[in-house]
Amino acid sequence: PDRLMTSPYMPCGCRYVSKAAAKTQMEFEYDGPSMKTEVPGPRSKELTKQLGEIQNVGAVHFFCNYEESRGNYLVDVDGNRMLDVYTQISSIPIGYNHPSLIKVMSNPNNMSAFVNRPALGIMPPENFPEKLAESLLSVAPSGMSRVQTMACGSCSNENAYKAMFIWYRNKERGHNIPSDEDMSSCMINQSPGCPDLSILSFMGGFHGRTMGCLATTHSKAIHKLDVPSFDWPIAPFPKLKYPLEEFTRENAQEEARCLEEVEDLIVQWRQKGRPVAGIVIEPIQAEGGDNHATPDFFKKLRNIARKHGSAFHVDEVQTGGGTTGKFWAHEHWGMDDPADIVSFSKKMLTGGFYHKDELQAYRIFNTWMGDPSKNLFLAEVLNVIRRENLLEEVTRSGKTLLQGLYQLQDQYPNLLSSARGQGTFCAIDIRDDATRNSIILKARDKGVLLGGCGDRSIRFRPALVFKEHHVHMFLNVFSDVLAEHN
Amino acid sequence: PDRLMTSPYMPCGCRYVSKAAAKTQMEFEYDGPSMKTEVPGPRSKELTKQLGEIQNVGAVHFFCNYEESRGNYLVDVDGNRMLDVYTQISSIPIGYNHPSLIKVMSNPNNMSAFVNRPALGIMPPENFPEKLAESLLSVAPSGMSRVQTMACGSCSNENAYKAMFIWYRNKERGHNIPSDEDMSSCMINQSPGCPDLSILSFMGGFHGRTMGCLATTHSKAIHKLDVPSFDWPIAPFPKLKYPLEEFTRENAQEEARCLEEVEDLIVQWRQKGRPVAGIVIEPIQAEGGDNHATPDFFKKLRNIARKHGSAFHVDEVQTGGGTTGKFWAHEHWGMDDPADIVSFSKKMLTGGFYHKDELQAYRIFNTWMGDPSKNLFLAEVLNVIRRENLLEEVTRSGKTLLQGLYQLQDQYPNLLSSARGQGTFCAIDIRDDATRNSIILKARDKGVLLGGCGDRSIRFRPALVFKEHHVHMFLNVFSDVLAEHN
Repeated sequence: PDRLMTSPYMPCGCRYVSKAAAKTQMEFEYDGPSMKTEVPGPRSKELTKQLGEIQNVGAVHFFCNYEESRGNYLVDVDGNRMLDVYTQISSIPIGYNHPSLIKVMSNPNNMSAFVNRPALGIMPPENFPEKLAESLLSVAPSGMSRVQTMACGSCSNENAYKAMFIWYRNKERGHNIPSDEDMSSCMINQSPGCPDLSILSFMGGFHGRTMGCLATTHSKAIHKLDVPSFDWPIAPFPKLKYPLEEFTRENAQEEARCLEEVEDLIVQWRQKGRPVAGIVIEPIQAEGGDNHATPDFFKKLRNIARKHGSAFHVDEVQTGGGTTGKFWAHEHWGMDDPADIVSFSKKMLTGGFYHKDELQAYRIFNTWMGDPSKNLFLAEVLNVIRRENLLEEVTRSGKTLLQGLYQLQDQYPNLLSSARGQGTFCAIDIRDDATRNSIILKARDKGVLLGGCGDRSIRFRPALVFKEHHVHMFLNVFSDVLAEHN
Repeated sequence: PDRLMTSPYMPCGCRYVSKAAAKTQMEFEYDGPSMKTEVPGPRSKELTKQLGEIQNVGAVHFFCNYEESRGNYLVDVDGNRMLDVYTQISSIPIGYNHPSLIKVMSNPNNMSAFVNRPALGIMPPENFPEKLAESLLSVAPSGMSRVQTMACGSCSNENAYKAMFIWYRNKERGHNIPSDEDMSSCMINQSPGCPDLSILSFMGGFHGRTMGCLATTHSKAIHKLDVPSFDWPIAPFPKLKYPLEEFTRENAQEEARCLEEVEDLIVQWRQKGRPVAGIVIEPIQAEGGDNHATPDFFKKLRNIARKHGSAFHVDEVQTGGGTTGKFWAHEHWGMDDPADIVSFSKKMLTGGFYHKDELQAYRIFNTWMGDPSKNLFLAEVLNVIRRENLLEEVTRSGKTLLQGLYQLQDQYPNLLSSARGQGTFCAIDIRDDATRNSIILKARDKGVLLGGCGDRSIRFRPALVFKEHHVHMFLNVFSDVLAEHN
């Protein structure tokens, strides 16, 4: 039976018709979710069993038919079509099988970039500087004109940390020529060559799961358990009350407390002989539960970094790429000089980091250094974002989404709290962990795909092509599911 | 002027004609190198300047025209065509623009794998188990039926280390349920949750440049300098005399000395409270200077790991994929149970690691977990290897190459020493660093692309389609260059 969702919440005939450009988009996308089985269905279960013979499938939700997926709709192998508000852990920028990306693939001029993956650091392709200019540099954060690509988010942060360590040591030495002792001691993992430096991170932060990144990740124990780590300082991230504008005084106090702690930790770790070479922070703690802080907090933190001679690294792996309504979430802070390093991945399709001139390092290197085929897709994604005014769309959809969440929160005060967000990067807290998980599963069976974060939050991570009518469709299903949990 | 190389060394009319299948290959490839300018030429210099505005170009050799590159020939942006014996740091398996890989690209059924990169750990595509079976599992090392893909070599090793740490801690606990103390202490980077465990590595080894990997990398100071590290044990790697078969007694003594040191270190680090959870080693230390050890050494090392309860991780990132004449270099050891973990990347086009059942971990996870589009290419690469009997070709070419190197070494005893290799994975030592670098540059200007490794070695890393006539062409140019340096 076709379990296509209909409900009084969904405005009749609201199917979105863009006057601007989106004829393709309109014809291209599906009308709504359509459910044939529970999820995972029988075919997904069969494939999960098969894959289980090869690797751990503890985290597999279901198997997908990516060929049939379109725009905001993910189709699974049992023919279920779901409105995707999670988008592969926030990594699909403009929906599935966007016609413009298909074109990139079918352009014979691009063939060679896919078939011959170069060692970019030594033998880049002819169009590499041009493609960087039209893709990554065209959206470079304020004050940054240099960028290094990497294969994924973790590698991006690992290498960003290395760039900060190298920069810090050069500053300490007063030049960039290592001593003989530096050279010999580093070969056996000892200082001064491998110095006792640290990165200050925040409780609740997530920066990846390789060992350097993991020492700065503090969102869930399960990420860190059993892996050796570094004795690096961990500051409290402000625990604010939402909506932020209603609790300005309490929130400002909480932020002041955290900033004071940051300064204390920097001093303590310097005294310990492990100076803080860099501070890393997400503009919105994503995995950790969509924890926000105010522009004032980030401005002051940036100043603390400057005052103590630590580099300031803004990790935009999850927040970057337009989902907050600005291309980078840190643009909401309104600063000319927001950071020394900004890392990215996910929606950017390639990992990497922007950095100030003084943080460039010859020693940041590996075999692939990214993947030029991903830069081709990114260049086209940016074209689509501009052509279809997707940042404006995100802002509009995001407002509608947040208003809908506020409304539902008023309606279900025992179930929901702390609706919050920027653009469509929104979240809401659920009564408890068990209810949260049940809501996510129930919504999925009704054709809406959601993800959790933190202890008891649901995070909304649609693609940038998530329009107002998709918001209404989502709110409609969500409302039904909440009614079942009240 | 066309500086096409001709020389009496090159057997006349030796152009390779495969009876089996390679009609395409024959028509497809170029006849030989063809040099128009010095390298880097003016266009490369111009592009290097452009790229220098965006990122550090200290390691850039020249820019390539990948569209025009074919088989063993890399074409640069100045129209120079070079016989490539370095292949993007050993990462091009079957040459440039192989017709079979072009077909993978132009198959519309594959489109979606390129355009929609999934979060493989939660929502894999329908064909994922099947593609793993026909690609990675079809070449699984002895005793291993499980594999996890990753984006690159460093991520592969980082996650392999994590799998070993988790396995070791579960063994220590006697079960896999962490205590409350484990859970709370790991959030702040402290033991027992983040335990004081170590990985034993070898001096001269290279396992990547992210922070966990880097703690086990000891090939060049410049890789490690200024990056904080772990106090982990580092054993000497045997310094053998070549050809191995002529120095069996001395070499056996040297290997015994190193093995004894390994056991001492394991005991010492256990006493220090940092037990060795795993041992990581390359079958041939590649970056570190193509240092070989005998099968007997690896067998004994594997037994030491077993005796002390440490996992045994063989890093085949550079040696894997057929280049030694067997698909994995460790197959030369002739063991049924060679390792607990085997990691790979480069020629395999995707990173990842095989592992024993007991080393699987739900907690090995990230957003992308590899890239299914790379698995499609890998499946086709493996088809080509089988169809064109490339492992036999590699063995044949490798013998010719090594014989040629022995001959040149006899001819230039003051210049060359220690010719060594398995398959085409060969190397030779040059008198000193400066001469080595000069030889590499001179060979490049004559149309042969080589790479260095260690202090004064040249490493040969051709693709698997490097045939005997390519060997002769290389030896011909190399011989000319050596004559200039004698």
